[in-house]
Amino acid sequence: MQTESAHSQSTFDFATYLAEKRVLIERELDAYLISKEPKMLWESIRYSVLEGGKRLRAILCLTTGLAVIQEKLSTDEVVQTVLPCACAIEMIHAMSLIHDDLPALDNDDLRRGKPTNHKVYGEAIALLAGDALLMLACETLLTKTPKLISMDSIATVTNELCRATGAEGMVGGQVYDLEFTGRVEQLRTEGGIASDTSTLELIHRGKTGALIKFSAWSGAKLIGASDKELGQINKFSEVLGLAFQIADDLLDVTGDVKSLGKTPGKDQAANKVTWVTLFGEEETRSRLKHLEAEGLELLDNLDCASEPATALRRLLQYAIHRSN
Amino acid sequence: MQTESAHSQSTFDFATYLAEKRVLIERELDAYLISKEPKMLWESIRYSVLEGGKRLRAILCLTTGLAVIQEKLSTDEVVQTVLPCACAIEMIHAMSLIHDDLPALDNDDLRRGKPTNHKVYGEAIALLAGDALLMLACETLLTKTPKLISMDSIATVTNELCRATGAEGMVGGQVYDLEFTGRVEQLRTEGGIASDTSTLELIHRGKTGALIKFSAWSGAKLIGASDKELGQINKFSEVLGLAFQIADDLLDVTGDVKSLGKTPGKDQAANKVTWVTLFGEEETRSRLKHLEAEGLELLDNLDCASEPATALRRLLQYAIHRSN
Repeated sequence: MQTESAHSQSTFDFATYLAEKRVLIERELDAYLISKEPKMLWESIRYSVLEGGKRLRAILCLTTGLAVIQEKLSTDEVVQTVLPCACAIEMIHAMSLIHDDLPALDNDDLRRGKPTNHKVYGEAIALLAGDALLMLACETLLTKTPKLISMDSIATVTNELCRATGAEGMVGGQVYDLEFTGRVEQLRTEGGIASDTSTLELIHRGKTGALIKFSAWSGAKLIGASDKELGQINKFSEVLGLAFQIADDLLDVTGDVKSLGKTPGKDQAANKVTWVTLFGEEETRSRLKHLEAEGLELLDNLDCASEPATALRRLLQYAIHRSN
Repeated sequence: MQTESAHSQSTFDFATYLAEKRVLIERELDAYLISKEPKMLWESIRYSVLEGGKRLRAILCLTTGLAVIQEKLSTDEVVQTVLPCACAIEMIHAMSLIHDDLPALDNDDLRRGKPTNHKVYGEAIALLAGDALLMLACETLLTKTPKLISMDSIATVTNELCRATGAEGMVGGQVYDLEFTGRVEQLRTEGGIASDTSTLELIHRGKTGALIKFSAWSGAKLIGASDKELGQINKFSEVLGLAFQIADDLLDVTGDVKSLGKTPGKDQAANKVTWVTLFGEEETRSRLKHLEAEGLELLDNLDCASEPATALRRLLQYAIHRSN
């Protein structure tokens, strides 16, 4: 298994894999989000969902779908089955950026190198576009997932999407983030909370972890993964989600506005609780190294198709070593 | 039918009916929304969902469920089947008030005689509580509806809730409202748009109509109403929704802050397009009278159980003649 994966990793063209999946996802999103009335609302929705983004969550969802070994479906059928879910995830992600950037939250003017949604369409439309996207994501999953998947399964996945997004997931994480902002010094000196990293994990698990975990889980679940497989995938995606957020924390310090496409240094300026503000750069890099090793080991033990396993490996490394 | 309904109407205790249903709905909402971490988020959610409100949409949902004549379910079973959906509707309604009251939209300080959500918890938490409620509503419908209802049916109803709430429904209506605000004079003089009331209907159908229509439809749908019954109920609920919003427009002019629990005169001050700002008070009262007659006639022709038919009759009259 080790040798095989090492081999396929060397011949696997990750850049092409990402590019192909991205085209697929964006074509599908474009079709789902045909502009209707009221025009301004739909323009605002399309602006945030379609213009840019790495699509990593959606690609993760497709990849775990492909990772589940089974004989009934072709590669293309797997992709078509999981694609609506992958698109729903991108809608939720876009929505979270729109609301996050609002003056009431992070008050950001720049996102992916362009003005944020409310800078273009105004706060009212940005707020409402985010609301609409939450509903569109559920509608997409419920109505676009091919009927060869049982409605029980689709409903279970939709419910988990809501949980990952709402008070127990992303939204909850944002509230923890708000609550702890400005309390870096206190956490550092209290030691108890900081040393077991529970505060950070509370924030990270919700803010980014929940949707990344859902992305990995849902692709496999829709294709009929066993509980054992789902358990393995969950373990891996927890490491991936944590690594992704810690890399983000680091980029806020080391990145520049051009490659980031957003304003760096904002976490520090806002006195946010992040890995870097709590433990410093060196400790953060060392944590990332450990997470990379942990994630790769989990994948070595994952019983799945060889190419998707390689893709998951590369996704983890990309999440850690990316520059934006 | 006429005689029977006239009789049951005279003996039917509407106040008790409303009070009983309200207790049921609020007890269930309270159980669904048990306070968890992060505390501030859940407090904010509970503040807007549990403290006050007429629960008319939820009661409408229960009532159409009871109106569908069928022999398999007892009254109590019907109520238990529809209750999660009725609660989901109240969550959506509460969420719409929270986001509507934000400075980015209507900037209201007072709601149901109390400070609005963001006045108590701040804009960030109010924004996030609204987002969380959209997800909680879907979760409630998907997981709390008794399993005697097929998952296909539950998924269909959940999807319709999302449509009624999102870009094609409530959110879309709010955008139309924003777009036309300040254009009363223009619409009045242009004549074309104002005279066929299409602009107003576009706003009303979305802003309040969509969720009221869903409330009526979903109760009957979950209990297995026929397409013919659903068609009749849709026709009635369109009239009810329109009447409800026009009565709201009128209350903005005639109501006082004490009975309204919110600041009156805001539509006129903001130069909003409403029935009153476009056509004046007299014309608005006359339109309401016509709608009452139309709604009652539709109910006379509705083939349903006698007490729920009376309750629907009284709900229409209450929507029109209420003081808050």
